[in-house]
Amino acid sequence: MVHDFLFSVASDTSGVSDACVLRVGLIGTGVVGTGTSLVLARNAALIAQRAGRPIKLVMAAARNLSKAAQVVGPDVVVVKDPWILVRHPEVDVVVEVMGGVGLAKDLVLEAIAQGKHVVTANKALLAEYGSEIFAAADARGVIVAYEAAVAVSIPIVKALREGLAANRIQEVVGIVNGTSNFILTKMEEEGMGFVAALRLATELGYAEADPSLDTKGIDAAHKTALLAAIAFGADVHFDQVHAQGIHALDPWDMVCARALGYRIKLLGVARQGDDAIEVRVHPALVPEKHWLAQVQGSMNGIWVNTDAAGPTFYFGAGAGSQTTASAVVADLIDVARQRAINLSSRVPHRSVSSGSIRSWPIMPIGQVASRHYLRFAMGGRLDLLSCLPRWLQKSGIKVQQSVFVQHPQDATQDSWVVLTPSLAGDVLVDKLTVLKRKVKDLEPAAVWRVEDLNLS
Amino acid sequence: MVHDFLFSVASDTSGVSDACVLRVGLIGTGVVGTGTSLVLARNAALIAQRAGRPIKLVMAAARNLSKAAQVVGPDVVVVKDPWILVRHPEVDVVVEVMGGVGLAKDLVLEAIAQGKHVVTANKALLAEYGSEIFAAADARGVIVAYEAAVAVSIPIVKALREGLAANRIQEVVGIVNGTSNFILTKMEEEGMGFVAALRLATELGYAEADPSLDTKGIDAAHKTALLAAIAFGADVHFDQVHAQGIHALDPWDMVCARALGYRIKLLGVARQGDDAIEVRVHPALVPEKHWLAQVQGSMNGIWVNTDAAGPTFYFGAGAGSQTTASAVVADLIDVARQRAINLSSRVPHRSVSSGSIRSWPIMPIGQVASRHYLRFAMGGRLDLLSCLPRWLQKSGIKVQQSVFVQHPQDATQDSWVVLTPSLAGDVLVDKLTVLKRKVKDLEPAAVWRVEDLNLS
Repeated sequence: MVHDFLFSVASDTSGVSDACVLRVGLIGTGVVGTGTSLVLARNAALIAQRAGRPIKLVMAAARNLSKAAQVVGPDVVVVKDPWILVRHPEVDVVVEVMGGVGLAKDLVLEAIAQGKHVVTANKALLAEYGSEIFAAADARGVIVAYEAAVAVSIPIVKALREGLAANRIQEVVGIVNGTSNFILTKMEEEGMGFVAALRLATELGYAEADPSLDTKGIDAAHKTALLAAIAFGADVHFDQVHAQGIHALDPWDMVCARALGYRIKLLGVARQGDDAIEVRVHPALVPEKHWLAQVQGSMNGIWVNTDAAGPTFYFGAGAGSQTTASAVVADLIDVARQRAINLSSRVPHRSVSSGSIRSWPIMPIGQVASRHYLRFAMGGRLDLLSCLPRWLQKSGIKVQQSVFVQHPQDATQDSWVVLTPSLAGDVLVDKLTVLKRKVKDLEPAAVWRVEDLNLS
Repeated sequence: MVHDFLFSVASDTSGVSDACVLRVGLIGTGVVGTGTSLVLARNAALIAQRAGRPIKLVMAAARNLSKAAQVVGPDVVVVKDPWILVRHPEVDVVVEVMGGVGLAKDLVLEAIAQGKHVVTANKALLAEYGSEIFAAADARGVIVAYEAAVAVSIPIVKALREGLAANRIQEVVGIVNGTSNFILTKMEEEGMGFVAALRLATELGYAEADPSLDTKGIDAAHKTALLAAIAFGADVHFDQVHAQGIHALDPWDMVCARALGYRIKLLGVARQGDDAIEVRVHPALVPEKHWLAQVQGSMNGIWVNTDAAGPTFYFGAGAGSQTTASAVVADLIDVARQRAINLSSRVPHRSVSSGSIRSWPIMPIGQVASRHYLRFAMGGRLDLLSCLPRWLQKSGIKVQQSVFVQHPQDATQDSWVVLTPSLAGDVLVDKLTVLKRKVKDLEPAAVWRVEDLNLS
């Protein structure tokens, strides 16, 4: 059965001289597995031509055999036990799209040990066990490719590692979680609260049954850790990445931010500082004219700043069946051409001045400086407005820009919103403690960071 | 002198085990040559690490030897005769950034004949002689890489050929000429006429002394021909590409377009039709919320639609010294890794239905269907407004949307602007001829195409 395909593939790729087929084993026949099978079949001729040889799905592992057989068709061997697949001599490359970090990790490591290349869409796996997996792949001389792990329709991994390879990458700032961005868009456009917007996202299939990986910023943090590792050649330990989700965000803050010319987005930020790198995920104010502020709904967008190419921006779908398959199959084509580089080709970033190799620590979030947005709710006492600037001044909090925003329905929600100059998070916390002590329990109703991205 | 660099390179890339240097010969030490030399030197360690071996400029050819020596530094041999460079045994790869299609073509072909890889930023050369050059490179087994030929800071060639390689590409629509886009932005934002905006662009260094390649759409057509060749695997003859520039555009049309919710941009369109491909450059109305409408000033933006990944968008600088160098050096890194594919790996696109190989003709511009924008100047006779809809109806011109726009200063410029349903250019011309015959010499003051790009 496995052998039969050789003739059939050769017959419909008659333009390809070297018909040495790349044989693919697929672990997982859910949304992404289905898309991968479909794209490989539909664009087989095109893919064979671009890869220099046919790429053929020969085996699939899935719990539900009959459902899996429907997905992959009659020419593909379906097995229940994924260990058979990762050890099968007629599988050249394993596509892991089952998800999770337990069994998936063991299977990927076994595939590598068996000398098979691996293509994976599993950001959690790579963010948590990337060092181990890439070291194993390096030692065994096989490729682990993962374009599908970040912003699937956008070839951002390739752009960072190859397209911009001449550059010192200075920052990568992305909207990399479509579920959160869908929820934020609904909150902003329709004034929905977080819970209502999440319910809608779940009803429409944008959110998982357990959406906490998305809404708590964990998924975005996995992806941002990968982007930082690529951009800076850094060994980013996922547990060092600051992740703050969107669940505490009040839609009223989105209105107040707009009054200052900003939108609030869940950003993944990877930035090169002088002595450390920043790798963090949290909601932040983005200038409303910036490209990232225009990424709406479930789409993804990534802003990259570099020393030679300057700023570039990338936009596309961040999830979906065929969209993810596009990245998986691109990786398969690279594997077929033996063109992929491992993440392990990362080494510690070199500093500009000395040219020497050094390892960059990750800056603790409290030390990261940025402008901040503070919202003070009036609670119906407009007389406070005349005192607030003085109180802030006494607490050492400078005001760079401020605006009073009236709530359309509820006067107690009327707010004075302030942008501070750039200062470290810890410094702001200290100043706010002073404020709270000096002025009986006064504290802002909301505090968010501002990302002042270069607009040029 | 040429030999000396080996030690110096090896010493500052101590992390690289395989110090087999890729030796670069640079033809042209102008803006792009200077940037390339600078980026190769500044990021030498990073580049060596990413390329797997050092990349070293060893020779440069330029008319002005002393100026060139200043650009490339004392370790690089500078020659006046580029033929010495393309034939020199110690040059592995030739970077052609001299421009032009005469001598550059001969030098590139000689470099190929000598077994050297070529990296070029020369879109005119490839658009006009690509078939000959890629055939020669194929026969000799060398790489011709050209990321710098289109939208330099954006790795779009790599995105189309590798990142999106799993996809059937349906359309590529780009703003790929920064000079024109700068002029259009000034016309739109400040109401300048074309001539004044062009003068400003020249003063600020955005336009060449002879700007006609840019303003007449020739440069954009070169790039669009290349994009079409990559996207559709088509052999696009440059002289079949319809190119219309921006010189005839009235800023008043930009105001009228805005009244309908559109901006006017110079677009390069490469689109897969049922029986033919469209490859064309002309000003067109773009929905103002579309990404392409937001690309302002001298920047570039490219919209790509595909069958699996869906729509993606790319933005960045389209010209400049280090920005172009970013693409040139990325190509050098690919060459160093022997990872690049030649354009000649293109073959005629396969049709979806039959799976068979077929060649796609380029659709004549008159047969390309789109909605059209027609502007009728009132010439001070507002009474015409009541007759115009009837006259259009009698001539078979349907009106899908229309608006009357008053000129702020000049009542004779008051205009009735109309969007037609989609129809072929030739069909519209016929209908307008009928109109002109039926209603004494009535014709629109301006006719432009509308590109209704999928916004999702």
